[in-house]
Amino acid sequence: MAEEPKAVCLLSGGIDSSTCLAIARSQGYRCYALTIDYGQRHRVELEAACRVAAALGATDHLIVRVDLAAIGGSALTGSLQVPKDQPLHLIGQRIPPTYVPARNTVFLALALAWAEVLGATDIFIGANAVDYSGYPDCRPEYLAAFEQLANLATRAGVEEGKRFRVHAPLLRMSKGEIIRRALELGVDLSLTHTCYDPGPKGEPCGGCDACLLRRKGFLEAGVPDPLDQRR
Amino acid sequence: MAEEPKAVCLLSGGIDSSTCLAIARSQGYRCYALTIDYGQRHRVELEAACRVAAALGATDHLIVRVDLAAIGGSALTGSLQVPKDQPLHLIGQRIPPTYVPARNTVFLALALAWAEVLGATDIFIGANAVDYSGYPDCRPEYLAAFEQLANLATRAGVEEGKRFRVHAPLLRMSKGEIIRRALELGVDLSLTHTCYDPGPKGEPCGGCDACLLRRKGFLEAGVPDPLDQRR
Repeated sequence: MAEEPKAVCLLSGGIDSSTCLAIARSQGYRCYALTIDYGQRHRVELEAACRVAAALGATDHLIVRVDLAAIGGSALTGSLQVPKDQPLHLIGQRIPPTYVPARNTVFLALALAWAEVLGATDIFIGANAVDYSGYPDCRPEYLAAFEQLANLATRAGVEEGKRFRVHAPLLRMSKGEIIRRALELGVDLSLTHTCYDPGPKGEPCGGCDACLLRRKGFLEAGVPDPLDQRR
Repeated sequence: MAEEPKAVCLLSGGIDSSTCLAIARSQGYRCYALTIDYGQRHRVELEAACRVAAALGATDHLIVRVDLAAIGGSALTGSLQVPKDQPLHLIGQRIPPTYVPARNTVFLALALAWAEVLGATDIFIGANAVDYSGYPDCRPEYLAAFEQLANLATRAGVEEGKRFRVHAPLLRMSKGEIIRRALELGVDLSLTHTCYDPGPKGEPCGGCDACLLRRKGFLEAGVPDPLDQRR
């Protein structure tokens, strides 16, 4: 019997990356969950990532530190304010201050590095270009360009002729569709963390773009958010 | 008078990146030197980078930590052996164990992040495809692919229509040519560090690929290596 193929799955601990990991598992991959500790102010998401990786049966879970806070330029790592209570139709219209410069490029580069060490050629990322904050590095053309780069960048691509694939199964799904898919796959969404600006005990602020999009998603999916019930 | 344009210059503290920084300065860029502390065993190169950045008049010098040692897969971060005393004609024929998976992709991603924060569109990297160790992410086609990616990845590229440029002025120069260019530009090569596997006081091993290529370069350039004189 052929061994299951390996995949590196970027996992922040939010709904999207957790659902993405569940999809990779459902497609028969042995999943190596990769979480990046980049100095985010919402560090509670690292704990969520650990819970989710264990619950979804990741083969391994690695947290890699990279000090993006030293570079600055984002509300998620620096002193810029996280915007609150924006009208939903404005979210994603302009790249917001929560944009972390080149974050997905750094994340995918680290995923590529680990994939190469593991002998994997599949990378999963929960990028979404529908209900998202308008980040440029979540768009299909960006992900295609990274795939190109990966094949030129690595020993596996150059000497062994392997082809890397960047899978973004959520790319064209709405937040409601993502939540329905998560529930179909049995993902326990009470384990996830979403908020960009949580309180001291990790409680969601309810007003940042991420909280607003989460609420919209559960409304669309017609189910309650288990985090609301817990409070 | 127009302000000098800013450039982010990747600086390891070796001959190539130091010369690359000097070239960027000679072209009139205000240089923001970026050194990556990735858990390399030859940590003494971080001190060399500080000396070189100061000597060459970098406007700023940032050291960013990223834990590539957690990912492993390389003689430069892990427990693989650094090869010694290879015949020169074999260096670069195959990708060696000193290859760090996706290293330049990680480095360029961090350079891109800082460039975006600074409002710079120029990135300098001392990549070389002649006298090099055969790393895939030093080749022209790789660098061109990264430039493509950079324009799709960033707010600057997408909202502001800026075009990023990855400059690799050493790409087609031999090690001897690089050393001659460094001396023309007044780079003090006694400040640099080269060896992959230095002794406890930072002294070069003399046998790793990097040491062998350095020796070859000084022979070609017809000048003594100031590090030899110091010993």
